[in-house]
Amino acid sequence: MNDAEPTLPVAVPSTALFTDQYELTMLQAALRAGTAHRRSVFEVFTRRLPEGRRYGVVAGTGRVLDAVENFRFEPAMLDFLREQRVVDAPTLDWLAGFRFGGHVRGYREGEVYFPGAPLLQVEGTFAECVLLETVILSVLNHDSAVAAAASRMAVAAAGRPLIEMGARRTHELAAVAASRAAYVGGFDTTSNLAAGFRYGLPTAGTSAHAFTLLHDSERDAFTAQVESLGTGTTLLVDTYDVTEAVRTAVEVAGPRLGAVRIDSGDLLLVAHRVRQQLDELGARDTRIVVTSDLDEYAIASLAAAPVDAYGVGTRLVTGSGHPTCSMVYKLVARAAGDGPDAPLVPVAKKSLGGKLSVPGKKWAARRRGADGTAEAEVVGTGPVPADLTDRLVTAELMRDGRAVAREPLTAARERHIRSRAGLPLSATQLSRGEPVLPTEYR
Amino acid sequence: MNDAEPTLPVAVPSTALFTDQYELTMLQAALRAGTAHRRSVFEVFTRRLPEGRRYGVVAGTGRVLDAVENFRFEPAMLDFLREQRVVDAPTLDWLAGFRFGGHVRGYREGEVYFPGAPLLQVEGTFAECVLLETVILSVLNHDSAVAAAASRMAVAAAGRPLIEMGARRTHELAAVAASRAAYVGGFDTTSNLAAGFRYGLPTAGTSAHAFTLLHDSERDAFTAQVESLGTGTTLLVDTYDVTEAVRTAVEVAGPRLGAVRIDSGDLLLVAHRVRQQLDELGARDTRIVVTSDLDEYAIASLAAAPVDAYGVGTRLVTGSGHPTCSMVYKLVARAAGDGPDAPLVPVAKKSLGGKLSVPGKKWAARRRGADGTAEAEVVGTGPVPADLTDRLVTAELMRDGRAVAREPLTAARERHIRSRAGLPLSATQLSRGEPVLPTEYR
Repeated sequence: MNDAEPTLPVAVPSTALFTDQYELTMLQAALRAGTAHRRSVFEVFTRRLPEGRRYGVVAGTGRVLDAVENFRFEPAMLDFLREQRVVDAPTLDWLAGFRFGGHVRGYREGEVYFPGAPLLQVEGTFAECVLLETVILSVLNHDSAVAAAASRMAVAAAGRPLIEMGARRTHELAAVAASRAAYVGGFDTTSNLAAGFRYGLPTAGTSAHAFTLLHDSERDAFTAQVESLGTGTTLLVDTYDVTEAVRTAVEVAGPRLGAVRIDSGDLLLVAHRVRQQLDELGARDTRIVVTSDLDEYAIASLAAAPVDAYGVGTRLVTGSGHPTCSMVYKLVARAAGDGPDAPLVPVAKKSLGGKLSVPGKKWAARRRGADGTAEAEVVGTGPVPADLTDRLVTAELMRDGRAVAREPLTAARERHIRSRAGLPLSATQLSRGEPVLPTEYR
Repeated sequence: MNDAEPTLPVAVPSTALFTDQYELTMLQAALRAGTAHRRSVFEVFTRRLPEGRRYGVVAGTGRVLDAVENFRFEPAMLDFLREQRVVDAPTLDWLAGFRFGGHVRGYREGEVYFPGAPLLQVEGTFAECVLLETVILSVLNHDSAVAAAASRMAVAAAGRPLIEMGARRTHELAAVAASRAAYVGGFDTTSNLAAGFRYGLPTAGTSAHAFTLLHDSERDAFTAQVESLGTGTTLLVDTYDVTEAVRTAVEVAGPRLGAVRIDSGDLLLVAHRVRQQLDELGARDTRIVVTSDLDEYAIASLAAAPVDAYGVGTRLVTGSGHPTCSMVYKLVARAAGDGPDAPLVPVAKKSLGGKLSVPGKKWAARRRGADGTAEAEVVGTGPVPADLTDRLVTAELMRDGRAVAREPLTAARERHIRSRAGLPLSATQLSRGEPVLPTEYR
């Protein structure tokens, strides 16, 4: 067991080892064969959406740019690869100087997507592109799964605020990325302080049942909370009896109490009762927050309930039944030979068992009808047809190894709202169905 | 947006911000109320196993010990909390000096578990225990979900080696923890280099379809791979035509070729054909590795096939349908008052909507029958009955804030094998059913 830094929970200083071993052994064999420097194009795409989903949401693109720029082999990593004999000495020498110097095009973060489209296109030598496969897929598959769930929940919430609170249900660093992806997909705040620290997301949270149980009475607990956090705070009212708790809450905080939170029971029923009780107590502006195992269906079922905000955990960070996307990273074109001017030739694995890959370096455009509504995702190789040049979805993200498309996270969030709004109305149905746009190949 | 360190993909130097905001606001209110220093006992437990599962597997315990020891608020974190007004100045002062100084007992890593048992018990002041809720649950819920899936796959594989290769299907750091948890649950190697680097796990991997497609012919690709990696390597034989590829592989590498890998098609059928062909070509010791969307059921269905190793990705790192456990962290006892000698009183939220919590500081023991097979998980409060003192499952993990139960990962792996072997035989059925041990409360 490696115990070089036993006290550090995260002892990985760069992204270069978030990599499957075979990327490095392929590199070694290609370096020796003289093929490592062949110009290559890899593409990230999915063969299908998760069953029943109408659209996917690209998320993690900004994290991919960070990951690629920080993909370098530190001395400790090279020592490890040497000691474990993962690759040979010439490969280690090559890795020691490695920085990605190629180009990346693809979908901008927050964009909706459909099967077959080139979500990310990485172009450079085989050597530099093949190394990035694992970390690119890790980021995009995870973040896009969360963003897709978030987007469905945002549709169901129909404008009511959504609080991400799933940190405890997923790996502690996946949780930070999940908060970020949820924000792109339409969530408003997060309980996760690391996400606030790292990405500047707005954070939220006041108290749990433990706080009430710590005190000698619910009244003591509410008094302690209001004295410290002010009357604008959110009091949790379902530790013992909800009706009593709401009465106590308004007695303690007054009618300007910020909110009450309900975390169990029949939320529809309880929310109606609590609203009525709050109104009768004069606390008409006190909001109701609900937070018990919600998903997009539970949120939709509360549309008619007097609920002011939803807190969502488990189902959000696990992609609401689809915790990962099925994005793959495939070589679609490479130089026909070893000369510097060898033309690119399209390549693809032969289809076996439905694993279809379309060869060639692709672009994608979204064809729209007269009213502006999207009609098809058009994916093609070669020159972009004149009628689609202003409909291109793929954009330049990285040039010569440097990101050229960094943006604040709010830009991705707004792009997602616009992008989803441009789809046919059936996109926002929660029921199972086909992708709302067909993919056309040209 | 926070862009203090835009080039660092992981800019979180300690575990203290892997924390929901409400832990800190509860701390603030309790500090002000004078209740923050009440002695408290929190317990991690589940109310149920994932539907149909026969047992759970505790994993992540070692990571929890790291996370708790590294839970400290760095100056940059305190600045963030101050600027965002998450908590007030007295709370910030308290956090600046915080180190957990309490005690932790619980299940050892690799142990099987059942609903209601105190998997982790954290004892100290309310203040120091409440802060740890989120990060402890993140680690245990994630890692235990992966270990449970790994254990089922290991049962299905019946001794054949299992390779973890799911990095691309989950967050890049969750992937490292997933490799670790898979190893605890019975996997043998991982494709994930960061897991090799961080935890010393054995790594594996040779080549992907891209390597074959890079070359002008499959023969060129195989030749390049064998020249660089030796005849003991694993050649991927399903890029074009499997039969032709196997013939070429043995021609290129000779009959001492290490292995061939099949990643698509009807694995049962193809494995039989490939075995026959390899045998006819004299490559009787060449192994067959299969790797296409496997889960425990697919592995079991290949029991009669001539397969020598399984590579598993997506379904492993997503917990085979259950990507998180439902572990919660609840206050179960706290001091009856503020004096230093105030006795502990059991506490629990009132049950609403099935959210049952059993009050009191608990121990757990595994009752066994005459033949040594486990019969029940006994959970109790108060003194341990004499007949169960040598059957205790809960052990001391941390004393006065220092880990006392660190162990190599192999110890957890071996514990899991022993622990599972001590269960009734029905534990290893893959079909849905009830937990194989009932939980008895005393």
